[in-house]
Amino acid sequence: MFIDRLMGKVKKLENPTVMGLDPKLEYIPLSIRKKNLELYGNNFKAASESILEFNKRLIDAVSDIIPAIKPQLAYYEMYGTEGLRAFEETVKYGRQKGLLVIADGKRNDIGSTSEAYSRSYLGEALLEDSETKAVYDVDALTVNGYLGIDGIKPMIEDCIKFRKGIFVLVKTSNPSSVQLQDMAVEDGRKVYEVMADLVMDWGSNIIGECGYSSVGAVVGATWPQQLKELRERMPNICFLVPGYGAQGGGAEDVAGAFDKNGLGAIVNASRSLMCAYKSKKWEDKFSEEEFDIACREEAIDMRNKLQNV
Amino acid sequence: MFIDRLMGKVKKLENPTVMGLDPKLEYIPLSIRKKNLELYGNNFKAASESILEFNKRLIDAVSDIIPAIKPQLAYYEMYGTEGLRAFEETVKYGRQKGLLVIADGKRNDIGSTSEAYSRSYLGEALLEDSETKAVYDVDALTVNGYLGIDGIKPMIEDCIKFRKGIFVLVKTSNPSSVQLQDMAVEDGRKVYEVMADLVMDWGSNIIGECGYSSVGAVVGATWPQQLKELRERMPNICFLVPGYGAQGGGAEDVAGAFDKNGLGAIVNASRSLMCAYKSKKWEDKFSEEEFDIACREEAIDMRNKLQNV
Repeated sequence: MFIDRLMGKVKKLENPTVMGLDPKLEYIPLSIRKKNLELYGNNFKAASESILEFNKRLIDAVSDIIPAIKPQLAYYEMYGTEGLRAFEETVKYGRQKGLLVIADGKRNDIGSTSEAYSRSYLGEALLEDSETKAVYDVDALTVNGYLGIDGIKPMIEDCIKFRKGIFVLVKTSNPSSVQLQDMAVEDGRKVYEVMADLVMDWGSNIIGECGYSSVGAVVGATWPQQLKELRERMPNICFLVPGYGAQGGGAEDVAGAFDKNGLGAIVNASRSLMCAYKSKKWEDKFSEEEFDIACREEAIDMRNKLQNV
Repeated sequence: MFIDRLMGKVKKLENPTVMGLDPKLEYIPLSIRKKNLELYGNNFKAASESILEFNKRLIDAVSDIIPAIKPQLAYYEMYGTEGLRAFEETVKYGRQKGLLVIADGKRNDIGSTSEAYSRSYLGEALLEDSETKAVYDVDALTVNGYLGIDGIKPMIEDCIKFRKGIFVLVKTSNPSSVQLQDMAVEDGRKVYEVMADLVMDWGSNIIGECGYSSVGAVVGATWPQQLKELRERMPNICFLVPGYGAQGGGAEDVAGAFDKNGLGAIVNASRSLMCAYKSKKWEDKFSEEEFDIACREEAIDMRNKLQNV
């Protein structure tokens, strides 16, 4: 089951870190970008090749110390079919290196369409004569639950059939998540708590040996108090916690996301790992060309900080 | 401005119909599928070629009588980069034929990532040396507002800059939309009404000469009473109304979505148009090979029904 693979890796590496791969061009060292600009011209192909090379070296740098990566689909979609090919190759490369891959797509739709999204990322696409074939074949997908169970059900079915996972948005890391998510409903719960209770229900039939469900929840590192309260509220639900590092969340902020064994949550950092070589902390120690070494050092620092909370 | 282009076309054609292009393989006539199976083998390329050929003939059949098409991204994503190429070509072909194209992606994320989605569909992708280039270049995109304004803002900025539109999910057509969207909040509003009020606010700075905003709302045809109430509540907001036809909504159900001039809403039908040739109504009159003529006949029927409510 997905969640047992994930929690097993977190335990073995003593590290709940997920490296977010949200590759903006400006994050990528000039040497890589110039090379591809000369090879392919100033186009989507060059941008996508730069992204892929950047990603692969980042993956190489940390694949023995972190359990998972989380490529953010928007940054690949932005370069059209070339970009999606870089996404595809990133997923393949990450899985080859033993990493679990969580596609961050926040997909959502009504049942029949949600089934198509599920086939794209978790299950298998339909071909002629009832044949099927995996498409991106990631380990898990992030999902938006605004439409209710209809859109979630086909994904849960694929999670069971193909040993995959989903993470449903509960309380997102951005400031304006309060606008809808923090509204109080008649019975006193907040909207994000209503969503939390729905996720508990949706995940109840796919709980692994580790005690957590392959249906997880996204809860931002920028809301430490809510993380703690939701940990109590959702004992079987594993949290994917974005917003660590560049978005402002620190190790103390995410402490409440974990159970007493240090499990039950994974913490995503994107910019702080990808762009470690640009940070005040590392820019004097490493050159642009050593961006991968800087990323590894930062990942080790992050692991140590998370181990000590 | 997007909304003026859209309302202008609806007025000129006296037709608010949007053809949804959600192409499942089983919808496509065997003659097309067999040809591509022989040409390319049983793979994503063959499926994507079949989808593209099907779409083009459907577009040819109705481009003089309907204002817009709405390809549903999930069905293209399912065939990987080949599928996305079929999406790209469908968009191009539709726009060549004078149709407005609404990409149904229900995208959503925090601000920086939402900007990347916006660049993918509404704006332009960043290349080297601050150059930019349009990617899919559709006219409008559907969006999920669960994250609040942070994720919507970059899209609105691109709507202004590139004369595009978005439609934010308010009350979706599926049965389980009640689970979250119909919860009452403390002040008595339903969650979908909270979202409706947010959309009113978000759309207030981008209102066209027609009186409607380029920020629209998705409200399902399956909720006639809510359509009527939301029409009152959101006087400047144009509705994209899915769920007509195969999902159960009829012309009377969507009547409340329109203003007294018959504007302010567009009504999407997918399966009932794409698969008209398979319906009881048309299957005796048209062969599989005449699927496009059946689609046109059904589109004319739908237009006439919508004109008479």
